[in-house]
Amino acid sequence: MSLSQKIKRYNKDFEYSYTLGVYPTIELLLHQPDKVEAMFFHSKGIKNQGIQKIKALCNEIGIEPMENDRMVDKLADRGNTYAIGIFQKFGTQLDQEENHLVLVHPSSMGNLGTIMRTMLGFGQNNLTLIEPAADAFDPKTIRSSMGGIFQLKVQTFAKFTDYWGSYRHHVIYPLMTNGSTSLPDVIFKKPYALVFGGEKSGLPDDFLQYGTSVRIPTSEAIDSLNLAQSVGISLYHSWIINN
Amino acid sequence: MSLSQKIKRYNKDFEYSYTLGVYPTIELLLHQPDKVEAMFFHSKGIKNQGIQKIKALCNEIGIEPMENDRMVDKLADRGNTYAIGIFQKFGTQLDQEENHLVLVHPSSMGNLGTIMRTMLGFGQNNLTLIEPAADAFDPKTIRSSMGGIFQLKVQTFAKFTDYWGSYRHHVIYPLMTNGSTSLPDVIFKKPYALVFGGEKSGLPDDFLQYGTSVRIPTSEAIDSLNLAQSVGISLYHSWIINN
Repeated sequence: MSLSQKIKRYNKDFEYSYTLGVYPTIELLLHQPDKVEAMFFHSKGIKNQGIQKIKALCNEIGIEPMENDRMVDKLADRGNTYAIGIFQKFGTQLDQEENHLVLVHPSSMGNLGTIMRTMLGFGQNNLTLIEPAADAFDPKTIRSSMGGIFQLKVQTFAKFTDYWGSYRHHVIYPLMTNGSTSLPDVIFKKPYALVFGGEKSGLPDDFLQYGTSVRIPTSEAIDSLNLAQSVGISLYHSWIINN
Repeated sequence: MSLSQKIKRYNKDFEYSYTLGVYPTIELLLHQPDKVEAMFFHSKGIKNQGIQKIKALCNEIGIEPMENDRMVDKLADRGNTYAIGIFQKFGTQLDQEENHLVLVHPSSMGNLGTIMRTMLGFGQNNLTLIEPAADAFDPKTIRSSMGGIFQLKVQTFAKFTDYWGSYRHHVIYPLMTNGSTSLPDVIFKKPYALVFGGEKSGLPDDFLQYGTSVRIPTSEAIDSLNLAQSVGISLYHSWIINN
């Protein structure tokens, strides 16, 4: 059986995943070249500059890109997908000395991908997911991250306390609408972990016991901000005050 | 022909739109009661507390909510929608003295709704859309805004210069990846307009000629932030320094 016959539409139990589209595929090749297993492109994209770049990068790492319209159409869930890169999923330990972002039960792959990209923009490369959580390696998450996932360390834990036990030196800052300190007043002690709850209800009140709880000051016109907005604002703020 | 037969799935040319779900429907009733034309609920939601609140609010404004499972199922694009409020779309002039947010060709309804909600959180109630733009009144935008649109003034213009001609006193701050001033260093002069380009390519370079162009300082790991992230960060920052 050929490789092309074995590859199926993504399921989270697979040991591999894939990039959809030229941009995230280039990011895969640039940042995780040793995880690449196969590369497919569509005949429609043959003149696309990105495809030329993908071919050159594949050449450097000794992978032969294959023109295979059927495979691309099978895996892509929208038209105009020119490239698909199959790669082996990777798990990583986080850096003990760097700051972390911890997401407790995030449910939206779109939000998760957006957050990954924003992390990179604000110099943050260590992401923890507490399960159940949206799948970091789903092709939809990867696309939403614009391939940002390939520059991140991502580690998943079953419980927050398991994370906490593994990274005891991190100062915990849970972001909560009833947090004790307003974001602009927080003095962050490094290395720290910014902790956020899921889209529906945020963090439960027992997180008030960890470290210093933080609230983003908003008007009373809304109950809470969208998760990705809260994360983006917090990452921006901590980046600015540390730079 | 009864009202129920006339109401169709949303199309942007309609003079009416509708809320999908309990939360945005309550926001509609609270903030734009005189625009409400009809109210439908699903028999499955009859014990839902939100439906009880909707009935009480309808009673106050003299609207009779109708149990109509077929209508709710016809208009809703996902299950578990318990309430739908039909309302007349409204256009509004912006406040001459208040700060504005200007979005030039935003294309994602999800982003637009998220931005609306974040605006409210940071005390910003005046939104301008430069066409072509995602439809502010599409039920998907309304749902993504969690009904936030009902507390906003929204005005649409065909061109940025049309907006500029109408609000000449506003100091223009275009947000651009090559902006001249870093966001933390900007001294905002009121009333101001924060101006953002669309998801794909941001603002074109001719916006550098307007007012003071602003960049959000990011690492070099990414080309640009997601639109909703850029807007959220900018609104947070300007809210914090003015409060």
